[in-house]
Amino acid sequence: MAAELVPNKKVIFKNYITGFVKETDMELITSDTIQLKLPEESPGMIVKNLYLSCDPYMRSRMSKHDEPSYVPDFVAGSVISGLGVSKVVYSGHPDFSAGDLVWGMIGWEEYSVITNPESFFKIKDTDFPLSYYTGILGMPGLTAYIGFYEICAPKKGEYVFVSAASGAVGQLVGQFAKLMGCYVVGSAGSDEKVNLLKSKFDFDEAFNYKKEPDLNATLKRHFPEGIDIYFDNVGGAMLNAVLLNMRSHGRISACGMISQYNLEKPEGVYNLVFIIMKRIRFEGFVILDYFPRYYEFVEKIISDIRQGKIKYVEDQVEGLENAPAALVGLYKGLNVGKQLVVIAHE
Amino acid sequence: MAAELVPNKKVIFKNYITGFVKETDMELITSDTIQLKLPEESPGMIVKNLYLSCDPYMRSRMSKHDEPSYVPDFVAGSVISGLGVSKVVYSGHPDFSAGDLVWGMIGWEEYSVITNPESFFKIKDTDFPLSYYTGILGMPGLTAYIGFYEICAPKKGEYVFVSAASGAVGQLVGQFAKLMGCYVVGSAGSDEKVNLLKSKFDFDEAFNYKKEPDLNATLKRHFPEGIDIYFDNVGGAMLNAVLLNMRSHGRISACGMISQYNLEKPEGVYNLVFIIMKRIRFEGFVILDYFPRYYEFVEKIISDIRQGKIKYVEDQVEGLENAPAALVGLYKGLNVGKQLVVIAHE
Repeated sequence: MAAELVPNKKVIFKNYITGFVKETDMELITSDTIQLKLPEESPGMIVKNLYLSCDPYMRSRMSKHDEPSYVPDFVAGSVISGLGVSKVVYSGHPDFSAGDLVWGMIGWEEYSVITNPESFFKIKDTDFPLSYYTGILGMPGLTAYIGFYEICAPKKGEYVFVSAASGAVGQLVGQFAKLMGCYVVGSAGSDEKVNLLKSKFDFDEAFNYKKEPDLNATLKRHFPEGIDIYFDNVGGAMLNAVLLNMRSHGRISACGMISQYNLEKPEGVYNLVFIIMKRIRFEGFVILDYFPRYYEFVEKIISDIRQGKIKYVEDQVEGLENAPAALVGLYKGLNVGKQLVVIAHE
Repeated sequence: MAAELVPNKKVIFKNYITGFVKETDMELITSDTIQLKLPEESPGMIVKNLYLSCDPYMRSRMSKHDEPSYVPDFVAGSVISGLGVSKVVYSGHPDFSAGDLVWGMIGWEEYSVITNPESFFKIKDTDFPLSYYTGILGMPGLTAYIGFYEICAPKKGEYVFVSAASGAVGQLVGQFAKLMGCYVVGSAGSDEKVNLLKSKFDFDEAFNYKKEPDLNATLKRHFPEGIDIYFDNVGGAMLNAVLLNMRSHGRISACGMISQYNLEKPEGVYNLVFIIMKRIRFEGFVILDYFPRYYEFVEKIISDIRQGKIKYVEDQVEGLENAPAALVGLYKGLNVGKQLVVIAHE
């Protein structure tokens, strides 16, 4: 018996790009349909997608790489994929049942066929907004947790600088650092974000980097004693200025370099000799490697949220048709807080 | 009773510089004298200097820094200081006696007054050439030991690349890596040095970077599987190319950046995004921090040398008057092996 065909809008990635991503690099297709059932023997599942996550790393997937990159390139002409929160509508996999809420790698579409359900996380706590599983309770939260507590190896009283500090990861890193008793300064790209950092997230100081013509002088003003920990989300000119202002035995976690992702050629960084002189550990990480620790993390962060220790701001856009603009806006810094797209609320 | 005045030739640092150091930035003074005795109550000592070490970090001391650097700037108009091997001729310090052989920070002069004898290391094993204590048995040896075994955290079978590989540090790093069962490639700036790497130091491969127009292609050819460990002595363009060729979870020890020290403005490094994508740990160190571990190191390396496991090549220049040219030559890559200056053989 053939299952019913339902409409399945989707956003297609048109073709590989160089330079700045544009909305027209993506296209909404409204004519597709999907059967909400798989062949009897299939161990896959079908999910109804609720919330899509817009994440900086996605830009990398839009360029064609000669050699395999740390995440696979998108397939030109196919649906965009990204992390998201979904409800299982059909499962041939023993660990999942229709009705389960999950998060994992889905298509930018109303329904996705999932061939690797074992890569999905089950959502156990549902007394938070489900959208949180694209951010504080999902990959960006784990990124902040591992990146700060492990890669940065923080100590009480240290001087911490966070760039892109109001973003999904940055806002959490700053709060983790405050909870640990560090002095925390954040940078962001608008006065609204700067206010948010100071008023909502309890950063000691914050500045709008777009208004600072001399980042070295700005950092010297905020960190007269120097920086122990830099949580780098942006790379480029900010990283270059930070290197001049690090303290001995400082640590830089290379989490992201969003300022560079849309450039035809990356900016040069000139001050690397301070890696030696200041005995700096500059360490990159890819959060995929730490996914096995997700449940450990989420238990801890849920406890922190429940105790009112951690706050969270997200920027929701409604409708799959607005997803391309939301993703492009992320690289322009138009979002305030975690950028996500609502396809359906349940 | 006044002690005898003896002549004391010395090399003066004339004034702070930018750009490439020249012999004329230093001056030999032959008119000075010194008393080989200190006031009764002084806890210092007087040493007769035998061997001077020419080390890349010395260039940093020739530029004026607004803020304290990791080593103090030279004093314009005063004697150049550097590491060297000396014989104690007078001691007011209970731990040292006339006749002791030591190494530590001395002046580029025939005799030095030492106000901090406690910073000196006693030379216990004298069945090696004393000059070795400027290199394999001194600071550069410890640098190779700590930089490779600790900062690079090597594992058997890994792919290791060493730049400035025939230098004081590089030649030892390559041999340490071979002893550990790694695959080792070195770069150097002449065919003579490349031959030395392969024939004497047992590197698996080596290349003359001056003959390689495309360093990325060169590294791809030598490391088709990528690089696990890069022991960086040069920085700049080589570092930039290495970043493209690192393997996941690779390690880069930032030991030196000699290609950059004499530039008015350092070169940009453009490929730092691979620090993230390849999960690289890029870590700087300053060997001064590890001086307390010197005797641990020297015991091990002496055992390795005695067993014939480690070879060593040095480049000796005779005469204090030739020290400026030797130091300048270091930055031009004219030395083959550890560059040092002989003032006196005993």
